[in-house]
Amino acid sequence: MSATVATNKLDSLRAQMPALQATGYFNAGTFGPMPTVGIEAAHALIQSDHELGRIAPNGYERAGARNRSVTELAASIFSADAREFALTHSAGEGLNIALMGIDWSAGDEVITTAEEHPGLLNPLALLSRRYGVINRVVPVSEDTSQFLDSIEEKITSRTRVIALSHVLWSTGTVLPLREVCELAREHELMVIVDAAQSAGHVPVNLHELGVDAYAMAGQKWLCGPEGTGLLYVRYDRFADISPTYARYGQADMSGYYLPAPTAHRYETGEFTGHVIAAQAATLAWLRDEVGMDWAHSRIAEMGTLFHSLLVEIPGVKVITPPHAMAGMVNFNVAELHPRLVADALYDRGYTIRFVEYELCALSARSSVSWWNSEAEVRGLAEAIADIASGLGNK
Amino acid sequence: MSATVATNKLDSLRAQMPALQATGYFNAGTFGPMPTVGIEAAHALIQSDHELGRIAPNGYERAGARNRSVTELAASIFSADAREFALTHSAGEGLNIALMGIDWSAGDEVITTAEEHPGLLNPLALLSRRYGVINRVVPVSEDTSQFLDSIEEKITSRTRVIALSHVLWSTGTVLPLREVCELAREHELMVIVDAAQSAGHVPVNLHELGVDAYAMAGQKWLCGPEGTGLLYVRYDRFADISPTYARYGQADMSGYYLPAPTAHRYETGEFTGHVIAAQAATLAWLRDEVGMDWAHSRIAEMGTLFHSLLVEIPGVKVITPPHAMAGMVNFNVAELHPRLVADALYDRGYTIRFVEYELCALSARSSVSWWNSEAEVRGLAEAIADIASGLGNK
Repeated sequence: MSATVATNKLDSLRAQMPALQATGYFNAGTFGPMPTVGIEAAHALIQSDHELGRIAPNGYERAGARNRSVTELAASIFSADAREFALTHSAGEGLNIALMGIDWSAGDEVITTAEEHPGLLNPLALLSRRYGVINRVVPVSEDTSQFLDSIEEKITSRTRVIALSHVLWSTGTVLPLREVCELAREHELMVIVDAAQSAGHVPVNLHELGVDAYAMAGQKWLCGPEGTGLLYVRYDRFADISPTYARYGQADMSGYYLPAPTAHRYETGEFTGHVIAAQAATLAWLRDEVGMDWAHSRIAEMGTLFHSLLVEIPGVKVITPPHAMAGMVNFNVAELHPRLVADALYDRGYTIRFVEYELCALSARSSVSWWNSEAEVRGLAEAIADIASGLGNK
Repeated sequence: MSATVATNKLDSLRAQMPALQATGYFNAGTFGPMPTVGIEAAHALIQSDHELGRIAPNGYERAGARNRSVTELAASIFSADAREFALTHSAGEGLNIALMGIDWSAGDEVITTAEEHPGLLNPLALLSRRYGVINRVVPVSEDTSQFLDSIEEKITSRTRVIALSHVLWSTGTVLPLREVCELAREHELMVIVDAAQSAGHVPVNLHELGVDAYAMAGQKWLCGPEGTGLLYVRYDRFADISPTYARYGQADMSGYYLPAPTAHRYETGEFTGHVIAAQAATLAWLRDEVGMDWAHSRIAEMGTLFHSLLVEIPGVKVITPPHAMAGMVNFNVAELHPRLVADALYDRGYTIRFVEYELCALSARSSVSWWNSEAEVRGLAEAIADIASGLGNK
C-alpha cells in the first residue's frame, strides 16, 4: 500500500471516530475511541425499544441472534470457533469465570507473574482465601528462556494453572505466550490469560497459541462499549472448567441442570441489547473496514516510532523493552509523578494514562494505536520532551 | 386524590412512556416500558462519550458516583441502607452471587418451592452438582399456615437456606415472605429471595421483611434498561456470603485481598455508564414523579379489577389466587395453548406473556401495572372474552 493510500485510509477511518478530534488519543489501555457505526447501532436500538416496546414478539430470538453474532465475529478475528466464546461484562469477569470454574483442592498451586493487574490478582487472592490455593509468583524477564526457566522452577506436582497476561498493563511487555503454552502442555497445566491489553492490540490466533482460556476486554483496544468482554475457552477444556454461576436460558429446561453445549454455558447475568448491537457493529467495522492485519502492523510501526523518539529524550526513562512490545509504552519523566506527567500532557492536548499500584513500578503509560497519525506520535514525544526540559533536563 | 387528578396524573405519566402507544402494555413481567427521562439520559452519555472520549480526567470517579447513586435510590425505595446494595446485571446474577457465596458442605440442604423460575432453579441445581447440596422442594399453598407447615416439615439439622420468590412468575402468587423470614429466624436459616417479579410490583420494606438476600431485576416492573439488577444483602450477612468473583476496583489494593466494606464487594464484571445513567434517572422518576405508594396501590386496584372481570368469562380458568395477588394474573382460555392466546391478543392490540415450562402449569400471563388505564384493563378482558367466545365458550 502506498503512503498516500495509507494516509487516505487513516484519514477516512479517523473521521469515523469523533473522539479523536477531542484529544491526542493515546489511552486505548483504558478505553478505545468508539466508531460512529457502533454508536449509531446503540442509538437506533434504544430508540426503537423506547417507541415500540421491548416486548414485541420474538424479542428473545432477536437477542440470541445478536449475541451469537458477536461470538461469530470473535471467532473470525481471533481464529477459533464461535462455540468457544462466551460474552462477558469485562476481562476480569472472564478471568473469574475461568479460575472459579476449576474444582480446586486446598494446596493446589497457580503460577503467575509479579506484574499482573488486580483484575487477575484479585481472583487469585480470592482462590487462596476461599479454597486454600497457593499462588507462586515469578518475576518477568525480558529474556524468554530466563522467563520460561523461572516458570518451570515453580512447577510442582500440585501446580494446575499458569495465569498471566498476554500484554502486561504495567510495562507494555508482550509475554511469550506460545512458549508458555508449550511448557504448560509438557506439564499438563492449563494456561488462563488476562487478555485485557492484548485483544485488538497484537495479533491473536487462539488455536495456534494453544491457550486454554483467554479473557478479553471489549472497551479497550477493541473500541467497544464499556461493560463488554469475551471469554474464550478451548472446546476440550469445557469439562475442566465448570460454570460457577448458572443463568436462566443457558441450561437445559428439563428440570435437571445440563449446561449449554457451547461456551454460552459460561455467560453470567444479562446483556443489554443495544450495548451488544454496538459491540457487534464495531467488531464488524474493525474486521472489515479497518482490517486487523493492517491495524496490528500499524500499531507495531507507530509504537516502535514512539519508543525510538522517547529513548532519545534527556531525563526520560523508558520501561518497555523494545524487542517485546507493540503499541503500549511505559516510561517516567525524571522524578515527576506519572499522574503529573499525564496532567501536563492533557494540558498540551494528549491523553495518556498512568500506572500507580504498589506491586508494580510507577509509570506513565502511552497506548499508541493504529488510529494515531505519525504527526500525533511525534507531537506526543515533543510534548514529553518539553515537560522534561522544563524540569531542567536538556 | 380525586378521580380527575388521578386521571391527569396517569395521562401525564403515560405520555412519558411512548411504548404505551404501541400496544396495550401488559408485560412488565418480561420488560417494563422505559420512561423518556431514562432514554434521554442514555442517549446523552453515549453521545458525550463518543464526541469527547471516555478517557477525560476523573472518569472513574464519575462512574463510581453514578453507580452509587443507584444504590442510594434503591435504599430509599426499598427501605434499607445504600451500603447493602450491589449493582448486578440481572436478578439471576444476584441469586447466583448470594447462593454461591455460602461456604457449602456436601449434604447441606436448601428448601425451595415447586413453582420457581429457572433463574433460581438453575443455580440450585448447580449447587447440587458442584457441592453436593440437597434441594428440598415444597408445594405452594394458597393457605399461609399450610405453606409454612410444608416448609417447616422439610427443615433438618442440615438445612441452611430457604430460597424462594416473593412473587411467583408462574402463578402471580405473592408469597408470605415476612412469615417465611420469621420461621427462618427461629431455625437460624438464611432467606434468599428471587425478587425478579416483586421489585416495583409490590411494596418492599427490606428491613421489615427481614430477608437476608433479595435479588431484583432492573428491567421489569422497575422499567429500567435490560442488563440491570440490584442485589440486597443484609449487612450482618456479609460474613456469611463471600464474594465468589473478585473484581478490579472492588478490593483493597494493598496486595492482599480485602473485600470492599460495603455490598460493592459482590459486584461482578463492569457496568456500562449510560445504562447505569438510564437506570438512575428511571428510579428517580419512579420514586419522585410516579411515587411508589401510588404505583403499588394502583397496581393492586387494577389487578383486582382485571381478576374480577376475568373470572366472569366463560371458558377462562384463572390460576392466580385473588387473596394473594397484586398485578400479575395467570390464566388459561379453554384448551388453547397460551402462546396462541398471547398471539391472538397481540393481534387485538394487547401484549401479554405466557409461561411454558415443564415444571409449572402452562398459562397465559398478564402483568397489570400502574400505567394501564381502566379502559385498557377492561379492553384486555373483553379481548380475552372475544377469543374464548370464538372457541365456542359463551
